[in-house]
Amino acid sequence: MSKIYRLNLINSITGYKSANLIGTKTNDNINNVAVFSSVIHLGSNPPLIGFILRPTTVPRHTYENIHKYGCFTLNQISKSQIKSAHQTSAKYSKENSEFKETGLKYDFKDGIEAPFVKNSPIQVGCSYINEYDIKENNTIFIIGKIEVIYVNKNLLLDDGLVQLDKGAIVAINGLDAYALPKLIERFSYARP
Amino acid sequence: MSKIYRLNLINSITGYKSANLIGTKTNDNINNVAVFSSVIHLGSNPPLIGFILRPTTVPRHTYENIHKYGCFTLNQISKSQIKSAHQTSAKYSKENSEFKETGLKYDFKDGIEAPFVKNSPIQVGCSYINEYDIKENNTIFIIGKIEVIYVNKNLLLDDGLVQLDKGAIVAINGLDAYALPKLIERFSYARP
Repeated sequence: MSKIYRLNLINSITGYKSANLIGTKTNDNINNVAVFSSVIHLGSNPPLIGFILRPTTVPRHTYENIHKYGCFTLNQISKSQIKSAHQTSAKYSKENSEFKETGLKYDFKDGIEAPFVKNSPIQVGCSYINEYDIKENNTIFIIGKIEVIYVNKNLLLDDGLVQLDKGAIVAINGLDAYALPKLIERFSYARP
Repeated sequence: MSKIYRLNLINSITGYKSANLIGTKTNDNINNVAVFSSVIHLGSNPPLIGFILRPTTVPRHTYENIHKYGCFTLNQISKSQIKSAHQTSAKYSKENSEFKETGLKYDFKDGIEAPFVKNSPIQVGCSYINEYDIKENNTIFIIGKIEVIYVNKNLLLDDGLVQLDKGAIVAINGLDAYALPKLIERFSYARP
């Protein structure tokens, strides 16, 4: 099969992917942001997340910036932001801020040295904890610890669940398709 | 915050999660299946996937079985399967097959020594490649290589994208909420 066919196929068979904008700082004048579809929950206590970096492609700036400042932000993408979010995957030079290029706005708060994405319904500030070299394909699994969480309160239920569809938060199908989920059912803790 | 509140909150802020049933074989008489929300795409060439195992909880059987037979299956969950899929997260003893307990049906094919989930719109047979101990919280990041793919052909587009919503494939929000996405837009490769 062709390279593109293979990319589309293999990228879609694992199912829906989370859609996060990761914000980092290059220096005091340049703030970067890039879309990532590999962010996963790693554990709740301590609150850890993980994501995959491909060092040979665009998000390399993200890697350098995370190492420089020791932190980054995760920002959920809502429906109105998908065009700008996808555009962050273009190969801009390091001197260009994707914020400037895509029209996304940033925000600094809580002393985190990384930009949050304004109007993202969920914003998470993380510190860099560790990384694992995945030798099978030279990717890097980055581990971050959650330091601060901002959630639009319309999304937050009494038991702590953040109901994503209340913020029109999207999921990614493959490399370039964006889908809007609607909650269909919630189950209780399963017992035999 | 309470333990449950924290679990719900931290599990939902990373966004939508993929919903996979992972099938393994305990022995010739017992086939196991468990729902996982941490499966991610790792790379297309070689075709690799990864997922997180929490050794202290239910899917421990999955870990032992993968080591015994060197393979496992990934099966996308469609809307009609969510109740059974969620029920696989109950702590059944190793001697019980979740297939028997939940009503899901299995299928063996292509010489893969792990059960596929019948009627799953995407079924992927994987071989075990490697694992990384995530020392920050004692989880294990399992790396699998894709060996065979079965896709319901109604989902497969000409360029290789598997359009997940054509199979009513679900995504997971938090620990226990299932959402049904609809494709909203596909973009071309982004250029500056």
